[in-house]
Amino acid sequence: MWPGKTRNKSLKDIQRIYLEKINRLENCSLIETKEARGFTDKYGQKIRGIEADALEKHIKDDYIICLFDRGMEMSSEEFARFLEQTGSSAPGCITFIVGGFLGLAERILKRADLLLSLSKMTFSHELTRIILLEQIYRALTIMKGRHYAK
Amino acid sequence: MWPGKTRNKSLKDIQRIYLEKINRLENCSLIETKEARGFTDKYGQKIRGIEADALEKHIKDDYIICLFDRGMEMSSEEFARFLEQTGSSAPGCITFIVGGFLGLAERILKRADLLLSLSKMTFSHELTRIILLEQIYRALTIMKGRHYAK
Repeated sequence: MWPGKTRNKSLKDIQRIYLEKINRLENCSLIETKEARGFTDKYGQKIRGIEADALEKHIKDDYIICLFDRGMEMSSEEFARFLEQTGSSAPGCITFIVGGFLGLAERILKRADLLLSLSKMTFSHELTRIILLEQIYRALTIMKGRHYAK
Repeated sequence: MWPGKTRNKSLKDIQRIYLEKINRLENCSLIETKEARGFTDKYGQKIRGIEADALEKHIKDDYIICLFDRGMEMSSEEFARFLEQTGSSAPGCITFIVGGFLGLAERILKRADLLLSLSKMTFSHELTRIILLEQIYRALTIMKGRHYAK
């Protein structure tokens, strides 16, 4: 789940390809919520607030993982084990939330069951979406013992 | 520098876009060296050896940074500072080397002045190329005080 559609056409293509690959192994749906428009960067808190309202409409009793730059880092193998354990013990779905251009509101981060960081480095939010999808796909291939690229 | 051309068309498009963005701020050229073909994964050492031969033809007296999963991790800001300092003290260019499908030969890693890891997670080698280019572009915008996406 994330606010706004992916604008870069090539990244959107890769997003679609990974979603298809993931869905061959596990049910996964993408929810693109309403993004805040018409504000400059100065209104970061307002933007994050509006986007949080839209995200919250879709947050159910799921296990929530928010992408956050100061979150926990894992190797791909640790991430696979984590998803396997969480998937088998959580009653609902596992929901990943990626923030928009200006990140996620404090209250969404507080609701999260886990804050996950993909890297010490900062990636653009659209690239983060792709990297997350690739890691979910990679984790599923590790869990299911499939062969996948290094 | 890396062995083989990027096969995924969408990733190749993004690669081109980032190279153009980088070149607006700093000279940067991509060298796609010969990749080893016709071997199965079992021949990893042979594959890496053949690809190392091709890479070595282009390795000059430059400052060499090899991407390596157990290399040093940095934040984007640390990476920018590092590039700035290295760029001003190194006599030649800074050359980044990304391995192919089966990684880099030991002798290329030994030649490196720095082993850099983009994440604890493992990314596909084609995605790694994109992430590296995005980080180089981000580092240049940080060094030059430009505004760029979070």
